[in-house]
Amino acid sequence: MFVRGNARRSLSLVVLLFVCLLPFAKAQTDPLPSWNDTSPKQTIISFMQRVTQEGSPDFVPVDQRIATFDNDGTLWVEQPMYTQLAFVIARVHALAPKHPAWKTTQPFKGVLEGDMKAVEATGEKGLVQLMAATHAGMSVDDFQKIVSDWLATAQHPRFKRLYTECVYQPMLELLAYFRANGFKTYIVSGGGIEFMRPWTERVYGIPPEQVVGSSIKTQFEMVNGQPVLMRLPEINFIDDKEGKPVGINQYIGRRPIAAFGNSDGDQQMLEWTTAGSGPRLALLVHHTDAVREYAYDRTSTFGRLDKALDEARAKGWIVVDMKNDWKTIFPPQP
Amino acid sequence: MFVRGNARRSLSLVVLLFVCLLPFAKAQTDPLPSWNDTSPKQTIISFMQRVTQEGSPDFVPVDQRIATFDNDGTLWVEQPMYTQLAFVIARVHALAPKHPAWKTTQPFKGVLEGDMKAVEATGEKGLVQLMAATHAGMSVDDFQKIVSDWLATAQHPRFKRLYTECVYQPMLELLAYFRANGFKTYIVSGGGIEFMRPWTERVYGIPPEQVVGSSIKTQFEMVNGQPVLMRLPEINFIDDKEGKPVGINQYIGRRPIAAFGNSDGDQQMLEWTTAGSGPRLALLVHHTDAVREYAYDRTSTFGRLDKALDEARAKGWIVVDMKNDWKTIFPPQP
Repeated sequence: MFVRGNARRSLSLVVLLFVCLLPFAKAQTDPLPSWNDTSPKQTIISFMQRVTQEGSPDFVPVDQRIATFDNDGTLWVEQPMYTQLAFVIARVHALAPKHPAWKTTQPFKGVLEGDMKAVEATGEKGLVQLMAATHAGMSVDDFQKIVSDWLATAQHPRFKRLYTECVYQPMLELLAYFRANGFKTYIVSGGGIEFMRPWTERVYGIPPEQVVGSSIKTQFEMVNGQPVLMRLPEINFIDDKEGKPVGINQYIGRRPIAAFGNSDGDQQMLEWTTAGSGPRLALLVHHTDAVREYAYDRTSTFGRLDKALDEARAKGWIVVDMKNDWKTIFPPQP
Repeated sequence: MFVRGNARRSLSLVVLLFVCLLPFAKAQTDPLPSWNDTSPKQTIISFMQRVTQEGSPDFVPVDQRIATFDNDGTLWVEQPMYTQLAFVIARVHALAPKHPAWKTTQPFKGVLEGDMKAVEATGEKGLVQLMAATHAGMSVDDFQKIVSDWLATAQHPRFKRLYTECVYQPMLELLAYFRANGFKTYIVSGGGIEFMRPWTERVYGIPPEQVVGSSIKTQFEMVNGQPVLMRLPEINFIDDKEGKPVGINQYIGRRPIAAFGNSDGDQQMLEWTTAGSGPRLALLVHHTDAVREYAYDRTSTFGRLDKALDEARAKGWIVVDMKNDWKTIFPPQP
């Protein structure tokens, strides 16, 4: 079959063989080049060796290799505010000409005038109004286009690059390393599921079906004989804190064996992950680098890390010291 | 590398090569041996050739090859009643000794006495009571064990085999055929998501994370210092009719290009699937075989097929005539 095949077939067999052998070649190189050779990297690599080595008492079959990653502050920047909040503000400005009453009505007035204290004063009711005005009342397809269009040009105020470029290079390497070892990588974020799905595959290599997040309700409707999913101004699910294990169970239906976060919103996900039997990995990114990124933890408005930090230290979860454990923060400017 | 390698390495390379070549060898054999060579099989195979042939105008990249399958009546038997309803009845009998009041209280009295008319008379309120008594009040892990234990011995009343053996051999072949061609196969069922996940991987090759279904709410709790997900007596999501496109969007986040059902509960899923651009496949299993399985459609209590049958004929969706299109119904008795 090999000897007598025609040239095209021989070529495709060689390509095929090369693809098959690629994992062997890759295993020789450093899978985490942006990580310093400190304790977090060593613990991660040791974990991976144990769960992937057949015959090891800690071996985990491929179908059970599930790893979940928070997004805001774990995979991309969440300061000076969550990117989705920057999107809300931008949408209010963009839509304001069609809503003249917003000039004199909170919480919209506050957003338009940059008076975030006035916005905060409207409490949960105000937030729901902002969400309804910017996230609901259009089809799922239309919303995805609005998100994609905004992200295509909106820049981070400090780093002057696209928000989708304000992602952590060491975490991109971690995602690739886990996938190369047979893991399914999931996002499990308090952020909006439909706000993430349009770009997570391109940026993180995580397809839409592996994104878990908060959501509003949608409704199936026939519009001019065409089926449409409309977004309703009603909360469906909050995928944060106690909601993260609920979301993991609802969407994935298995307990992860590795989980990655950076704030108190991830505490229950890490508890749920590590409470299973067999080898477990839990990691918190601690933002300690005011020069290259930001330094914040116990008192931050966004991504507060307080109780989870204490629990991490008590339980031996990995705590990444961004300043000391990461060689670089962001990928090279494209 | 090949010539000088030691024997073990050479052997593993041969095995690897064999695995790589397997798809080529398989392509020569009939992928759907339990299907007669009638129109449905021809349409399915033609669809597959078009979407998988690179350079074809209908080519679909692998990451967009999503196929969704209803479960009850599409992958396994749903007569004389949904299997999950048989489970509810069995659980009420099993739990009755601990609930003496059930002997005199509907809907439990009706279940215990086999008086389904009395149960029906209690309406939705009664159904919610039955659901709460049999599906809630325990952890997710405990419920999965209860389901698995029951399915390990419960037999279908007519076919005298396990319910998980009352699955359709032609559909098992279809699932494998789609996966062999790069599709991700999903269940999208009105049945309970946690009722299916314990066994779908073993029976259908569909892992828990690719099962979409109806659900009740769960809650994260700490019990004796251990995190537990408790099942609450409250509906979370009904994955039927208009709910199926909603569930598909919520869990998968992409529109399928192929969808398979058998009842009016699948109509909107097939509408949603076929309304996308490019090649689309929609199929309904029509139960026409009273001898080998069951014959039912427009007036059936379970799996009614009425409006969707009309729409299938109007829109050219595939309608499988079970009696004429399928050589066999069930896999050989193990």
